[in-house]
Amino acid sequence: MRQKLNLVKNAAGRLVPTEINGKKQTPFQGVNKYKPTGHKAAPPIRSCTDYPADGNKVVNSLQDALKKCGLKDGMTISSHHHFRNGDLVMNQVFDIAADENVKGLRWFPSAAFPCHKPIIEHIKNGVVDWIEGSLNGPLGNYASQGGMRGTGVLRSHGGRWQAVQDGEVHIDIAVIAAPTADLFGNATGDRGPSACGLLGFGLVDSIYADKVIVVTDNLVPFPCIPWQIQGQNVDFVVVLDKVGEPEKIISGTTKLTKSPDRLHIAELTAKFVKESGIMKDAFSFQAGAGGTSLAFAIFLKEMMKDADIKARFIRGGSTKYLVEMLEEGLTDYILDGQTFDLDGVRSMRENSGHQDTSPFTSYNWHGKGNFASMLDVVVLGATEVDVNFNANVVTHSDGKMLHGIGGWQNCLFSKCTVLPIPAFRNRIPVIVDEVTTLVGPGELIDVIVTERGIAINPLRKDLIQATKNSGLPIRPIEDIKDEIDKLIGGPPAKPTLTDEVISVVKWVDGTVIDSIFKMKK
Amino acid sequence: MRQKLNLVKNAAGRLVPTEINGKKQTPFQGVNKYKPTGHKAAPPIRSCTDYPADGNKVVNSLQDALKKCGLKDGMTISSHHHFRNGDLVMNQVFDIAADENVKGLRWFPSAAFPCHKPIIEHIKNGVVDWIEGSLNGPLGNYASQGGMRGTGVLRSHGGRWQAVQDGEVHIDIAVIAAPTADLFGNATGDRGPSACGLLGFGLVDSIYADKVIVVTDNLVPFPCIPWQIQGQNVDFVVVLDKVGEPEKIISGTTKLTKSPDRLHIAELTAKFVKESGIMKDAFSFQAGAGGTSLAFAIFLKEMMKDADIKARFIRGGSTKYLVEMLEEGLTDYILDGQTFDLDGVRSMRENSGHQDTSPFTSYNWHGKGNFASMLDVVVLGATEVDVNFNANVVTHSDGKMLHGIGGWQNCLFSKCTVLPIPAFRNRIPVIVDEVTTLVGPGELIDVIVTERGIAINPLRKDLIQATKNSGLPIRPIEDIKDEIDKLIGGPPAKPTLTDEVISVVKWVDGTVIDSIFKMKK
Repeated sequence: MRQKLNLVKNAAGRLVPTEINGKKQTPFQGVNKYKPTGHKAAPPIRSCTDYPADGNKVVNSLQDALKKCGLKDGMTISSHHHFRNGDLVMNQVFDIAADENVKGLRWFPSAAFPCHKPIIEHIKNGVVDWIEGSLNGPLGNYASQGGMRGTGVLRSHGGRWQAVQDGEVHIDIAVIAAPTADLFGNATGDRGPSACGLLGFGLVDSIYADKVIVVTDNLVPFPCIPWQIQGQNVDFVVVLDKVGEPEKIISGTTKLTKSPDRLHIAELTAKFVKESGIMKDAFSFQAGAGGTSLAFAIFLKEMMKDADIKARFIRGGSTKYLVEMLEEGLTDYILDGQTFDLDGVRSMRENSGHQDTSPFTSYNWHGKGNFASMLDVVVLGATEVDVNFNANVVTHSDGKMLHGIGGWQNCLFSKCTVLPIPAFRNRIPVIVDEVTTLVGPGELIDVIVTERGIAINPLRKDLIQATKNSGLPIRPIEDIKDEIDKLIGGPPAKPTLTDEVISVVKWVDGTVIDSIFKMKK
Repeated sequence: MRQKLNLVKNAAGRLVPTEINGKKQTPFQGVNKYKPTGHKAAPPIRSCTDYPADGNKVVNSLQDALKKCGLKDGMTISSHHHFRNGDLVMNQVFDIAADENVKGLRWFPSAAFPCHKPIIEHIKNGVVDWIEGSLNGPLGNYASQGGMRGTGVLRSHGGRWQAVQDGEVHIDIAVIAAPTADLFGNATGDRGPSACGLLGFGLVDSIYADKVIVVTDNLVPFPCIPWQIQGQNVDFVVVLDKVGEPEKIISGTTKLTKSPDRLHIAELTAKFVKESGIMKDAFSFQAGAGGTSLAFAIFLKEMMKDADIKARFIRGGSTKYLVEMLEEGLTDYILDGQTFDLDGVRSMRENSGHQDTSPFTSYNWHGKGNFASMLDVVVLGATEVDVNFNANVVTHSDGKMLHGIGGWQNCLFSKCTVLPIPAFRNRIPVIVDEVTTLVGPGELIDVIVTERGIAINPLRKDLIQATKNSGLPIRPIEDIKDEIDKLIGGPPAKPTLTDEVISVVKWVDGTVIDSIFKMKK
């Protein structure tokens, strides 16, 4: 069972544990306050003497590879989530671990999806102690009930790179599903029958893990080019019939909204970007893959065309809407961390202006800068926002953990962060007095757009000034909240939670910004 | 002054020091014998808090950048040599160091060229203690006279990566001349007025150095794509009028030979590759940039066309001859570590099949394999070969150090290593009883091709068998040597050297394979 954790109040006033899964933690100290010390993780020095001179690292089966990697009790096994809900490899990995009678593993995916529901059985049977990564759907639900033996750790994409790079998380075996690879282990996601675009979420694993297995269903003659993953970091190559179902990359979050309210919010958001002067030649933007964000991009595209404005770059998660903008010459580049549909995959393969990125380039807080802070504007979702502009993206207002952080926290460092959100969902208000879980500090969140008006963070006097005469429905956030509460009949009930921490939320610098508590039965 | 070094006999029977420049050394233990332990170098953890949020790392001058990097006595300053004899940056760096009254620096270039002759003055005036890298021309000559205060260390391209990666060489400040860069420090060599192709020799510096300065004469709006060097590793960007003279990339070594003897040797080499069965569909080869190697590639190309054979990949140093093969469809890929002429530069920019590589992918012995051992055949030069197939590439038979190792040692791990060499140069025989300096152990060198016949290493019974009925002039190496000695009038005089070590030669695994001694005046 999970140990009873000692909680302290961090700089955001949140109760967080000082130790998780046996490792000391630093409580959140405020934005830009924590300064890391020490050196990056240092993988063992290898020698070509121990690797086949002809470059052929192919072994007979996934089981063989795992055994050759020395799979044993208590190890950390990592994986990427570029197949999203179409991954076909990781359930097999833990089935093999069960066959081999291995216990107490930590699974360290960049995200887990509903397709990984069978791993709940491996938690129950002792093969897996806990999952450390974004938990969506059934796994999040299971963890919220207190089902894991270890404490969950939610990290942003950049935070995951930071944690591995800084040695907070040591990966014993990385399993990298690859749509195309050669026998040496060079691998790419942009081609092959299971093409998923890129493999950037697995890059840090390939660099820092003790042992690396590339699993492919499309073995090509050396060299596999591009080599998004480099064979010089790979120990073994496994060929399976099928590693993923790329058609399942498209999750529910990547469908364009049809709701008139959300379309209205999306249009208001685009108008804000235009009226505030952010939309200008050579500007840059990023929009998430949620339905409203997609609609925002479409509205913005029309406004850019009307005004004859071209972006210098757009950050993906790419979708067909962004690809159209690239191919119509509305941007020089898509800098893409994750393809959200098959048009994105195709474009990454075909367009030299569609550049794959990794959390190192885009999000890692413990580097010499990253791309996120250079964005002119980023448009993101949220499950809750409070009157101080603090936002939540991992739990619902009942406290249940159902979403990962993704690049959300990292993106808050853009020059302007806009959250288009509906005023309420299922009659539950989205603007609250205090967020259930703090994921993004209010000082980094600049604008909230609802169907009932736009609230600008009072810290952003420049934006208030710029949009003063725009005719946009700009209102204090408290006003919008009051209006919603009146409509619903008062603020929502506080969630009923125990005092048992089932997961923590890390800030981009590795400190603990909040805890997620077990739900009452 | 250099300390008097304690010498021991290594596994090759060569006298080598046990300590160099204050660091303990491991004597060469034999091919594939030394097993490294420990972990890779671990650079300090940085934080975005300390870097500009807008990504703009441009400072006013090279002097500013060096001062902000904390330039001080005793530091190690590194640079790459992609401009070869056309580098315009490094002399400026040491002039600035002199202005700042900094003393005792170690310069750690991937190679130094005649254009760096002014740095001899900086050795004399105490700014630079010694140069650790390939020394060509005047610097090699100066070092051979005992001019440096530290002991030189000659490493292969792969050995340089290995030394930095393994922490043997800690770089304080890396100066990366870049033909194109953005304000964030992303940089590429494949475009811009000073385009030199790629920046692979500077990659390890960018990853492991404490501080990294990108120096460019072509600042483009973010993002600079491709980003051969990633801005996330860069501290400062400096803009100069001109960073290099790409027309000087073409050195004397990259001119096609006109000598009838050498053309004959080149043709014999190509015939050997054909008759031995190495030239077959999807094969791979690498040929150096020397005049004979270039001629070999041209002969081989015609044989490939006649036999309707296509290579899977060719390894560069690229030249217009290799580019023609790519563009005529005679190979799927050029895997290129260094562009040797402007056609190579253009092709790297234009052809998706012209892939830039780095010593990490190609040569690093302390990785999980590298590309060199996957080559079907490699054709290299040598200054001397002995009857046991040992070869020398760094000193002349008078003992003077005039060449770097380049990728030469790394390439010896190919499936077949062929050295086409003239039987003698300036009436000095090239085949000797014992090489002046041991750079490549004979067990890795398979074939010697001279205008007086081809010698196959007796270890390679397979090659002897394959070419038995080929009609090629295959002879024992001793026979060829005897014939040459008789022509010249006896074997060459031994060089007259002191017992003072002025430089060592490292093997690919970081052990010391031989010493280079100071010449007698």
